[in-house]
Amino acid sequence: MVARTSIKPNWIEAAPEKGSYRSIFKWGDPNGHKHPKAKLLRLLKETFRLTDDHFRVPVSDGNHPVTFSRPCRVITPEHVSAICRIVGDANVSADDYDRLKFATGKTLEESLRLRQGQVQAVSDLVVHPRHKDDVRQLVAYCDREKIPVYVYGGGSSVNFGLRPSKGGITLVMGTHMNKVVRLNETNQTATVQAGIMGPDYEAALNEASQRYQTRHRYTGGHFPQSFEYSSVGGWVVTLGSGQMSSYYGDACDLVISQEYVTPVGDLKTLDFPATANGPSVDRVMIGSEGCFGVLVEVTLKIFRYMPENRRYFSFIFPSWEKAVDAGREIAQGQFGMPAVFRLSDEEETHIGLKLYGIDGSLLDRYMRLRGFAPMQRCLMIASAEGEKRFAGNIRRSVRRICRQAGGMSLTGYPTRQWAPGRFKDPYLREDLNDYGILIETLDTAVTWDRIHQLHRGVREVVKSRPDTLCMTHASHFYAQGTNLYFIFITRAENIDDLIAFQEKILYAFQQFGGSPTHHHGIGKLFSPWMQPHLGDAQMDLLKAIKRHFDPNTIMNPGGQLGLDLNGRHWREVV
Amino acid sequence: MVARTSIKPNWIEAAPEKGSYRSIFKWGDPNGHKHPKAKLLRLLKETFRLTDDHFRVPVSDGNHPVTFSRPCRVITPEHVSAICRIVGDANVSADDYDRLKFATGKTLEESLRLRQGQVQAVSDLVVHPRHKDDVRQLVAYCDREKIPVYVYGGGSSVNFGLRPSKGGITLVMGTHMNKVVRLNETNQTATVQAGIMGPDYEAALNEASQRYQTRHRYTGGHFPQSFEYSSVGGWVVTLGSGQMSSYYGDACDLVISQEYVTPVGDLKTLDFPATANGPSVDRVMIGSEGCFGVLVEVTLKIFRYMPENRRYFSFIFPSWEKAVDAGREIAQGQFGMPAVFRLSDEEETHIGLKLYGIDGSLLDRYMRLRGFAPMQRCLMIASAEGEKRFAGNIRRSVRRICRQAGGMSLTGYPTRQWAPGRFKDPYLREDLNDYGILIETLDTAVTWDRIHQLHRGVREVVKSRPDTLCMTHASHFYAQGTNLYFIFITRAENIDDLIAFQEKILYAFQQFGGSPTHHHGIGKLFSPWMQPHLGDAQMDLLKAIKRHFDPNTIMNPGGQLGLDLNGRHWREVV
Repeated sequence: MVARTSIKPNWIEAAPEKGSYRSIFKWGDPNGHKHPKAKLLRLLKETFRLTDDHFRVPVSDGNHPVTFSRPCRVITPEHVSAICRIVGDANVSADDYDRLKFATGKTLEESLRLRQGQVQAVSDLVVHPRHKDDVRQLVAYCDREKIPVYVYGGGSSVNFGLRPSKGGITLVMGTHMNKVVRLNETNQTATVQAGIMGPDYEAALNEASQRYQTRHRYTGGHFPQSFEYSSVGGWVVTLGSGQMSSYYGDACDLVISQEYVTPVGDLKTLDFPATANGPSVDRVMIGSEGCFGVLVEVTLKIFRYMPENRRYFSFIFPSWEKAVDAGREIAQGQFGMPAVFRLSDEEETHIGLKLYGIDGSLLDRYMRLRGFAPMQRCLMIASAEGEKRFAGNIRRSVRRICRQAGGMSLTGYPTRQWAPGRFKDPYLREDLNDYGILIETLDTAVTWDRIHQLHRGVREVVKSRPDTLCMTHASHFYAQGTNLYFIFITRAENIDDLIAFQEKILYAFQQFGGSPTHHHGIGKLFSPWMQPHLGDAQMDLLKAIKRHFDPNTIMNPGGQLGLDLNGRHWREVV
Repeated sequence: MVARTSIKPNWIEAAPEKGSYRSIFKWGDPNGHKHPKAKLLRLLKETFRLTDDHFRVPVSDGNHPVTFSRPCRVITPEHVSAICRIVGDANVSADDYDRLKFATGKTLEESLRLRQGQVQAVSDLVVHPRHKDDVRQLVAYCDREKIPVYVYGGGSSVNFGLRPSKGGITLVMGTHMNKVVRLNETNQTATVQAGIMGPDYEAALNEASQRYQTRHRYTGGHFPQSFEYSSVGGWVVTLGSGQMSSYYGDACDLVISQEYVTPVGDLKTLDFPATANGPSVDRVMIGSEGCFGVLVEVTLKIFRYMPENRRYFSFIFPSWEKAVDAGREIAQGQFGMPAVFRLSDEEETHIGLKLYGIDGSLLDRYMRLRGFAPMQRCLMIASAEGEKRFAGNIRRSVRRICRQAGGMSLTGYPTRQWAPGRFKDPYLREDLNDYGILIETLDTAVTWDRIHQLHRGVREVVKSRPDTLCMTHASHFYAQGTNLYFIFITRAENIDDLIAFQEKILYAFQQFGGSPTHHHGIGKLFSPWMQPHLGDAQMDLLKAIKRHFDPNTIMNPGGQLGLDLNGRHWREVV
């Protein structure tokens, strides 16, 4: 048993050194951090049998200068000159730090490798287009010269989506192409350049009445955990979902029209909310992950911003089965959907109650007394938005359903505890990794009739690994199913060990009826699962579309969506 | 002025002669009819300056035997034998009546031609597949032999969607492939064969608790005006919308997964309500109108059937502008959407109040007193469904918004008057056509910021034709826009005159910012507008997908969706 009064670990709080690997892989604000709470730390110490001493000296923190030697693979000096002529010298960089920074997403694997100075694929040149016409000229030029084109939005990809497997150029969309183009209050739409970041977009909408003299204030309704460091264009091309998507819809539901620059020319869709004009070109482009073209502009639905109507509520259930029953009944109840809607399994509830400061409290004792036992009880946190009575009726209906399923109200307290930190959790990773503890997440979509087999099956795989925590929650609800978001905390011998473990989980998703991902996109990491999951007929269609837009395979080549590998593994393309 | 006491016209009530043209073009039940009410008739007499005498002897009623000589264009006796071997002799017909019947949809043009015995394109052979495997073998055989394949669902196409322009075979889906395959209550989905008809599908769901021992009763939520004579597969492949789609979603929103038989093999999508696995193959196939393959099975969202919670309400507004303002505010109000939601313009309101028996009533006098003047006032009829308080809150919110926009409640009375006859209106056409009066409808999607320019612009075109009534309503609402459904009643010299008039209206849709159609599909009739509307880039993508699935152009060739005409007009392909 570890002593209760233990010293505070030596968490790193200083901003990463300028030019260091750490400055690349660290999440978010260089000065931002979120240390594990004492109770979580104690659990980790117990799980991994670590002493205070373990937390004194960080292991390979990556706080050393980026330095590597990687010659250009495709780009020649003539190419550089031509590209400089298009966008101007100031918007082109061949600097190694930039080449690495804009080649790096937020997978655990990338972070672990960079801590050790292991550099994988980088692009030859980083380019910051100023406007649509720059993108147009760049794509046309690269197509003529067969130069691979990768796109960097917010950089929060967790699937190697922006990995420049074949060198070439990386377009950084956020540097210049980050403006609100138009807010159309009549149609309740906003048109933005693809590189605008989530918070800038949301701020523009929240403050619309001042900035654009609109009658109402607005919200975009899209809040992925990566919100602060993700781009609107990224949401669209990777099929993102946000923490309130059960109410507002996933990114695919928010898109009204789009403008892409492709190797075969511009493609612009129209602003109609619905028509019967044949197959949906919009839904071909949404989720295309840079394989068909570069998204330059997008028009999205917006919603009235009415935070004053928000309602918080939460419930505790005696078991996962009861909690799932309630979750499904709510999703099928036809009274509208909660906005935040999360259902944690036994283990996540156990850890969550510690994190929210409820474990050990009076409330905890009351719960135990009422029979909600640790490692059996399951927590639901939720909120409702929209018109006032509509939101109120959701709370009321949820309460009725939860009680019928044996749940007990915990008031809005746990949701309120969760809400302020909801974009901060990714900061935890650096602290844990600094001391050799690995945390990673994988998500999978599932229909209601398979949720228990999938949950059990995947947990079995995760828990078969010694000393591994496995927290699971459902966070996006539909009448037909949900997603399961698995978070595991473990230690690993080495990176290969971690990769092998991830593959086992992905195999279990497939085996027990899940999808490769619900809202993380495919990128390159999940690309081997596209074919077994979708089958030949769907893959052949996607490949035919790829050939149409990108006959020279310059758009995000090297495995993205599994479209261009012809039998090789994406990791072989280096 | 026509006398008020006029004799009853000699409406045809007898079922069409067996084997007659009339038995093909007449809407619905052979014994079904819906005669124009006296007030409508009086309006028509006034408009077209017709006397009672005009309504004594019907003009070319088509009640004569189908007889034509049209040799097979593609099919040889060897083909017939081979096809008989696949599906059995009983499921193959080369009979002229069948060839015409299953080549005919419900456009006004087809009806007028058949009255005169004018036969246009027919297929060579009518085939009734028994199951998926029949379809599989038929499509494979036809692909090898380059035989065109057309698909007949419910036969309610209003765009020549099932016109066998190039001969070949017509598959009739409803004869055998009309079953509910599976009802999954846990996932709230129903899987059906594509040929099942609307009422059979809805009845199976409404009676699910008896038929399938489910806990709840269900509804499909899809009620196009053609409901009684349309197939579920047709809803999906033509992107249909129903009269309650503002709440339940358009057909595209209802689809969870699909199974198609295509010339390059079977394509089956998966049952997940949402994933992030790249472009949506489902949304490529929905709306493909038989050009990529034959839909054989589809899994749809279903909803709890709670008619006891239904609320009816209606409002009258002093002007179209005020009515539209209220409609938009409701669609953007974030309290859920009404199910039925129709907003009639001045002229449709004028005629509608006659049809609903309100014109001239006490209520009418009260409305006039309150300043709601004829040919200015506009009627909204609506209902709400779903959970009880949810539906109640929609009624309450709508009332608040309508009052703020200057509207006055007419209680649920007009909606209740409208509801029972809502699938019967198509019967009107036969009566009117029997006396040379033409009625036709065209629909177009529009964003809120263009609704008035489109409404005014199209009305101007329609009203520039002498003695023409033009009724318009919005019937499918989105936060970003709606549709405008134009109904015109006119007389025409001949069919070419009518066609030219339709083309003028379609041109006006394009000119004033509408789409070629909101929920009638493209078929062949609207195909000339695909290119100007969508532009080259979108059309090129659709054509590339067509080439992928149908390299020999056997699937619904001759103009469908504008994919295979290479510069010719679809009418030239005969």
